[in-house]
Amino acid sequence: MKTDFEKFFKPKSIAIVGASPNEKSIGGRTISHLLKYKYSGDIYPVNPKYDQIKGIQAYPDIKSIPNTVDLAIIIVAAKGIPRVIDQCLEKKVPFAIIFSSGFAEAGTEGEYLQSYLKNITKNGDIRILGPNCQGMFNIVDEVAATFSGALELPSIIPGPVGFVSQSGALGFSTFNQLEEEGIGFNYVVSTGNEADLEVTDFLIEFATHDQTEVLVSYVEGFKKPERLFDLAEICLREEKPLLIFKVGNSELGAKAASSHTAALAGSSDLYDSLFKQIGITKVSDIEEVADLCKILTRTKRPPGNRVGIITTSGGAGVILADHCAINSIDVPPLAEPTKQILQQYLPDFGSDLNPVDLTAQVAGSEELFNESVNAVANDPNIDILIVALTMVTGPRAGDMAKFLIKKSKEMDKPLVVVWMAGDQLAKPGFEVLKSEKLTFFKSPKRCIETLRKFIDIHSNFKRRKEIYQFISERRECLITTKSIENNLNEYEAKRWLNQQGLPVTKEKIARFPEEAVKYATEIGFPVALKVVSNKIPHKTDVGGVALNLCSPEEVENAYLSIKNNIKQNTGLEIDNIIVQEMVLDGIEVFVGCHVDPQLGPSLTFGLGGIFVEVLKDTKTVLPPISQNTAKTLIQELNGSKVLTGVRGQQSIDLDLLAEFISRFSRICASLKQEIQIDLNPVVITKSGIKIVDALVIVEEEEKNFIRSV
Amino acid sequence: MKTDFEKFFKPKSIAIVGASPNEKSIGGRTISHLLKYKYSGDIYPVNPKYDQIKGIQAYPDIKSIPNTVDLAIIIVAAKGIPRVIDQCLEKKVPFAIIFSSGFAEAGTEGEYLQSYLKNITKNGDIRILGPNCQGMFNIVDEVAATFSGALELPSIIPGPVGFVSQSGALGFSTFNQLEEEGIGFNYVVSTGNEADLEVTDFLIEFATHDQTEVLVSYVEGFKKPERLFDLAEICLREEKPLLIFKVGNSELGAKAASSHTAALAGSSDLYDSLFKQIGITKVSDIEEVADLCKILTRTKRPPGNRVGIITTSGGAGVILADHCAINSIDVPPLAEPTKQILQQYLPDFGSDLNPVDLTAQVAGSEELFNESVNAVANDPNIDILIVALTMVTGPRAGDMAKFLIKKSKEMDKPLVVVWMAGDQLAKPGFEVLKSEKLTFFKSPKRCIETLRKFIDIHSNFKRRKEIYQFISERRECLITTKSIENNLNEYEAKRWLNQQGLPVTKEKIARFPEEAVKYATEIGFPVALKVVSNKIPHKTDVGGVALNLCSPEEVENAYLSIKNNIKQNTGLEIDNIIVQEMVLDGIEVFVGCHVDPQLGPSLTFGLGGIFVEVLKDTKTVLPPISQNTAKTLIQELNGSKVLTGVRGQQSIDLDLLAEFISRFSRICASLKQEIQIDLNPVVITKSGIKIVDALVIVEEEEKNFIRSV
Repeated sequence: MKTDFEKFFKPKSIAIVGASPNEKSIGGRTISHLLKYKYSGDIYPVNPKYDQIKGIQAYPDIKSIPNTVDLAIIIVAAKGIPRVIDQCLEKKVPFAIIFSSGFAEAGTEGEYLQSYLKNITKNGDIRILGPNCQGMFNIVDEVAATFSGALELPSIIPGPVGFVSQSGALGFSTFNQLEEEGIGFNYVVSTGNEADLEVTDFLIEFATHDQTEVLVSYVEGFKKPERLFDLAEICLREEKPLLIFKVGNSELGAKAASSHTAALAGSSDLYDSLFKQIGITKVSDIEEVADLCKILTRTKRPPGNRVGIITTSGGAGVILADHCAINSIDVPPLAEPTKQILQQYLPDFGSDLNPVDLTAQVAGSEELFNESVNAVANDPNIDILIVALTMVTGPRAGDMAKFLIKKSKEMDKPLVVVWMAGDQLAKPGFEVLKSEKLTFFKSPKRCIETLRKFIDIHSNFKRRKEIYQFISERRECLITTKSIENNLNEYEAKRWLNQQGLPVTKEKIARFPEEAVKYATEIGFPVALKVVSNKIPHKTDVGGVALNLCSPEEVENAYLSIKNNIKQNTGLEIDNIIVQEMVLDGIEVFVGCHVDPQLGPSLTFGLGGIFVEVLKDTKTVLPPISQNTAKTLIQELNGSKVLTGVRGQQSIDLDLLAEFISRFSRICASLKQEIQIDLNPVVITKSGIKIVDALVIVEEEEKNFIRSV
Repeated sequence: MKTDFEKFFKPKSIAIVGASPNEKSIGGRTISHLLKYKYSGDIYPVNPKYDQIKGIQAYPDIKSIPNTVDLAIIIVAAKGIPRVIDQCLEKKVPFAIIFSSGFAEAGTEGEYLQSYLKNITKNGDIRILGPNCQGMFNIVDEVAATFSGALELPSIIPGPVGFVSQSGALGFSTFNQLEEEGIGFNYVVSTGNEADLEVTDFLIEFATHDQTEVLVSYVEGFKKPERLFDLAEICLREEKPLLIFKVGNSELGAKAASSHTAALAGSSDLYDSLFKQIGITKVSDIEEVADLCKILTRTKRPPGNRVGIITTSGGAGVILADHCAINSIDVPPLAEPTKQILQQYLPDFGSDLNPVDLTAQVAGSEELFNESVNAVANDPNIDILIVALTMVTGPRAGDMAKFLIKKSKEMDKPLVVVWMAGDQLAKPGFEVLKSEKLTFFKSPKRCIETLRKFIDIHSNFKRRKEIYQFISERRECLITTKSIENNLNEYEAKRWLNQQGLPVTKEKIARFPEEAVKYATEIGFPVALKVVSNKIPHKTDVGGVALNLCSPEEVENAYLSIKNNIKQNTGLEIDNIIVQEMVLDGIEVFVGCHVDPQLGPSLTFGLGGIFVEVLKDTKTVLPPISQNTAKTLIQELNGSKVLTGVRGQQSIDLDLLAEFISRFSRICASLKQEIQIDLNPVVITKSGIKIVDALVIVEEEEKNFIRSV
């Protein structure tokens, strides 16, 4: 499953097919970068026009190179690529990077060329990065196999971030911006069209490297989304945060994405659900990536989400408190002993609330500032300390920064700083914080938004067992596949669901009025009558439903009237009519399953009626889900109060509903066809839960998603 | 109404009471700032301990100063302030700035001192800024009447932003950060506790200054919120965007705010509604202020909200398209002639969609880049052009930037740049853009969020007549106040509402069963019977309601049964029972009015039942609102589809509902008491709209908000 990337990331020799002495060309820049970053292996420029390039002996083609080649970088025009790859195979080159464009992103001929690359890599004799990519940069081992302009920086800081991007331009421009902000990388890889190697291959590789602490990826679409489960497991096990900049969320974005790297952008909402379920952090802006990389690599783990705020400006405190509220971060009152200490230092105009406003005057005194910070840092009610400064400048800024550095080292809890001042005036402070790598922000909003995700990431590590459980259950369900041959009407669907262990209404099919009366008497009044036919999907519209029938006469009349309505409205002669128990005084719930062509089975549920039809107040997840998860999701519905009691009504049994959803989710997770199941409504009453109506629609084709699991 | 600030902003002489030679003291720093920024008037240090300070003759007290004093800056301890103010009055000093703290923010004694200041300023002999403030800085005329450390910058850029902040620390730290980002100010004022002068006084002043193009304010609470109407009118008339950083939105934030400047933080949601209604832009972070100040002072007006995106990286295009979708910004297909031009320049792998992906290769060619930008800039489908660049570096970066500057000057439409690269590598480009003040962003997200607000601000200017109309109608309503003496029960409330011109159900009060039958026959069956008594607020809970009575017998029985229920459940002997027409087959709507102690009458409406009780799917606005506004708001309800037709049902008459709400809003706007009116439900049917139940609850006390209008 896992690729051996040794010769890719640390090649002993590199051939550059399409090398050039021209600095402005891609071939020229690539050699320069290898040299500039002190590549220690052998370089073999390949170009029949030159004997040597930049003082290095050149060869007319790959096979003329006298020694083994670990990595071939290929820059020739798209249509010449197959010939080069053939030579690589002959020469037993294990890895190639293709910079050239003109493949799946460029019409039919390009698609053909790309499928050639895909096929030729299948048996693993050669593995290909690209085409249409900007290569890779192994910063730790100084292998700069890329032409990106981002390498023109005078110096590169190595560091703990591993980055894989489908977009080369965006990948290296992000790398450049973050480097200039002091965030170090160990690898940057641009995967381009992904004829063979794809983002998850590299993320899985990085997750097991000791030197990679944070994984970041820019993705327009996953070719094999099921590998995200493997990836998530490894990241949780290794406690490596994984940030995915997943784009193509809007219809237009998806269109632009598919025109860009020819990747399927996939169902954005479902990816959001999946990421949440398996502990992947979705990001949507480069500043968010920068902020998270900083805090994740520089700041201690938060034991919880209770924040203590100390500030030199009441205003800054108010802004931070507002943003904490928006982001559901707790700002609790301080413990009594902390208040007592603060009261010693704070004059009467300071507030002893959290946020603690030291005021600019007090902050001027070193002892008062330091002791106040100490007191809040030690408060048992506080998990995270924020120190928010405004116009602290000059030498005092440097002293404060040094104290905060010392404090953050001796504390068990995270300390972050918000410093609302410009670079010039606060320089003595900023320089200390930067050189000692303390996480600080100039924007209160970004600080709190970053803290929110920081807390979530660490709480994912804590709930890892739950995630492992989900992943292993999903895998298990997918192995024991269930299949359904044809569309099922209400009666058939409910029989099938009942066989799977789900509760349905009591019902029988009557073929004439007397039989309907007989069954109604057996089932018990009141009953409902519903026409049953695969030719009539919308029963109500054609007068095919009669509810609340309380006597044999009403049943007989209803039978005849339905038969008559159907004849009149559709011309069909129908005899089969379901006689069904009425489920009274219950709450209606919608539960459905849809099999996504990319991500496989998904489960959607919500309250019935207007909640699903008008308000779209539903939750979608990848099944299976446990009863606990189901219960949490139910409680997150906007309309959940309807279930837990409105206007003095009693709460329904949430556990019963959660158990039903969990049970249905296991059935969904085993479906391999592109199928749609609607249970609408499921009704919960005081005495239980039952599927009252159901529909199963089956698409014929089996989908790819299942093959590779 | 408008204060004459001539002697405040351009004082010919300034006395500093509490002046000091000590650079570390507030008094010392203040003199230094005046000198550093070349104050051209006379400076009179006041301090009995010194004969002269920094070479300037000092005086023992204000009255010893031989000449007139336009402005007194006061730094003495709080309890000494009254004496100094008395001397100022004697000396006829028209303005004072009080830096000292120890007032309303600091307990009972401080509150007393502050109310002294408030009273003494009432007749206008002296106007006071502060106390507990950091003063003001008039950058245009070089009057630095502040001790803020932000003035330590080696040089200050003057510019078009006028800034007023209740928090001194936050105000000047924002000023500092923005200055360092190249945003120039003309005034910065810190108002502190606002014993007298408050933020709106200064905002109204700035709005009429030619040199102020953008108004920014940090506010924890408005002392006289009704002045926002005056302010909004002036800003719209002068086309000055007004950004208000209104904090204290969360409960905790409000608590922190009130502990901070002793200002009432007010009802946050209602402020949001008000700001929207009168065209004020709410901001919530310092970066948002910076981004908006840049675009508002540097970029041409957007004729609409249709964006064209040209990019050197498909990835950047996808991200921008995603953020446009989130922010409801249109990214339309390009016009046919534009596509034809692009096809000449773009090779087959470039997409001709919007976003237009030039790819990094193409962007290297000057002609192709320039002509593509020209083509999209000229496209009639496009109102705003975004050029998104990634790793364009070196001299090419400078050339591209120069071209974009030229282009932005010759275009009628706005051009903004997103440049995702670090400062070092893209320096030649960034320097050109900065020096020529072209708006550019490094973050795609911030670019699009800023554009959204930029578009909204300019569309507010376009709809200014509508806003004037709202303001003048609200003023008019507030003058013709309506009042209600006591709480009204259902019957009384509906009579009163009917007198105001609103439709209510047909109903009469019956005192015995035969009368109930008589009235029911007159009204027409079916009817409802409801107990009516001020002692029974919750009729249903005590068995006081009977619905859908179809015959004289049912009415008679219901009368007796209600009477009996009430007796049993409450012990009360009730004879008065309403006989009311049943409004059948309608949709229930909730309409209510609440009078906020700060902002006055507000109107809330939404769909009835679970929509209001569970989902809180309501809209709140300040009345009165026009029928058009009401209709727009109805359509913005999450559940609006229920009104416009669900499951094949017909739409209700939205105009009828909108007209009802608009009519009710005029009644609300005239209420001066702290009052609460619930119309719940109002029912709309095919044949009309009627108030079915209503309640009016009156608080006794009249509120301040009305006095100052």
